[in-house]
Amino acid sequence: MPTTKQKHTVVHAYVAVFEAGSADAAAALFADNATVEDPVGTPIKRGRDEIHAFYAASMATGAKLELTGDLLFAGDYVAFPFNVKLSWGGQDSVIEVIDTFKLDDDGKIIEMRAFWGPENMKAV
Amino acid sequence: MPTTKQKHTVVHAYVAVFEAGSADAAAALFADNATVEDPVGTPIKRGRDEIHAFYAASMATGAKLELTGDLLFAGDYVAFPFNVKLSWGGQDSVIEVIDTFKLDDDGKIIEMRAFWGPENMKAV
Repeated sequence: MPTTKQKHTVVHAYVAVFEAGSADAAAALFADNATVEDPVGTPIKRGRDEIHAFYAASMATGAKLELTGDLLFAGDYVAFPFNVKLSWGGQDSVIEVIDTFKLDDDGKIIEMRAFWGPENMKAV
Repeated sequence: MPTTKQKHTVVHAYVAVFEAGSADAAAALFADNATVEDPVGTPIKRGRDEIHAFYAASMATGAKLELTGDLLFAGDYVAFPFNVKLSWGGQDSVIEVIDTFKLDDDGKIIEMRAFWGPENMKAV
């Protein structure tokens, strides 16, 4: 089972890779066979190549992340609330999000799910 | 797909049934074949009887819920952060939690998962 420290580390690394704008560094946080569902209800990206492409597109919006609460630790999972600040069609916006990461024993993300919808996006 | 209004309604009803201390009312928020995993990583309760027993035991601690942020809406899901205030071994405590509910088209909960661990519990 992944440790609390590994969960802390990967969440803070996730915020940092957006700050750096590096899709390579984002993809490196995931296990080879990982899945990404962002937002939940949309088609799942599978494997490093699809995940890399997803983060490259996300980062092209200039998206930066800001944690807005404590991390929640449960079994193989860590869940956390955060804001995404980005430019959406030329409009500065904030999206409120809760992510869940399932980690493997090496502390890599094997499943990421992002809970947010249009109701959670605001122009700023 | 459940509506945003149904998601709002069920989350606020969930808080209210704890306030009322009614395991019957809690179980009535779930579909017949629903599952509850609380916390994530522990054995899953399946069906109304197991779910009723789970909430009766939870409510025996005097647990009350307080939403601590906005609801997040994604596909069939709603996710939300909240605090649980309860008496744990005679000690007043607060647990920080994120729940995810998956709803059916009738607005009943078909899957509940609660993300929290010992790290998220504090004596008060």
